[in-house]
Amino acid sequence: MTATTVLDQPAAAELDLATIMGALADVHRLAIVRALAEDGERVCGTFELGISKATRSHHLRILREAGVTHTRVDGTRRIVSLRRGDLEARFPGLLGALLDAAAR
Amino acid sequence: MTATTVLDQPAAAELDLATIMGALADVHRLAIVRALAEDGERVCGTFELGISKATRSHHLRILREAGVTHTRVDGTRRIVSLRRGDLEARFPGLLGALLDAAAR
Repeated sequence: MTATTVLDQPAAAELDLATIMGALADVHRLAIVRALAEDGERVCGTFELGISKATRSHHLRILREAGVTHTRVDGTRRIVSLRRGDLEARFPGLLGALLDAAAR
Repeated sequence: MTATTVLDQPAAAELDLATIMGALADVHRLAIVRALAEDGERVCGTFELGISKATRSHHLRILREAGVTHTRVDGTRRIVSLRRGDLEARFPGLLGALLDAAAR
């Protein structure tokens, strides 16, 4: 039997624009979002950001607590993905525009 | 003769996404951006935000230094506007998506 735990995250209806803006106000967090947009989901340790594990964890936590990402724990792995559906439902078109902007 | 001074702002080519996200990570600054989008430009004292003059000045400075707004000084008035053209040129579609999101 496999136990999968989903880490705390805000409900879809509670996504807040100012909080999301704050979560994206950092080049490393923008890089994480871009990588997730390309790859669908990533195991936590596979981001190539050139930062320490503690700093990466800090950035991932901010993204998750803002509702940008979803993290599930599967054994020793943390698997991170974008909350595309929830973001699109709450703020249609925003994630796409942000990803386009981040690619420039 | 009228002397108009434009307050310091980043060049259009230097607009930075993470910095802009940080400027928008606040409900009052989002409210300022929405008001400017509706009205084109505003005299500094006419925003109805329910905050002190000093706090309003702080928020306006952050928006200007991030490149979101343009401020010109005309006598005793400060006149603020969105840098729509510069933002659209640098990050096409972003401002519109943000305004849509802020209206929800």
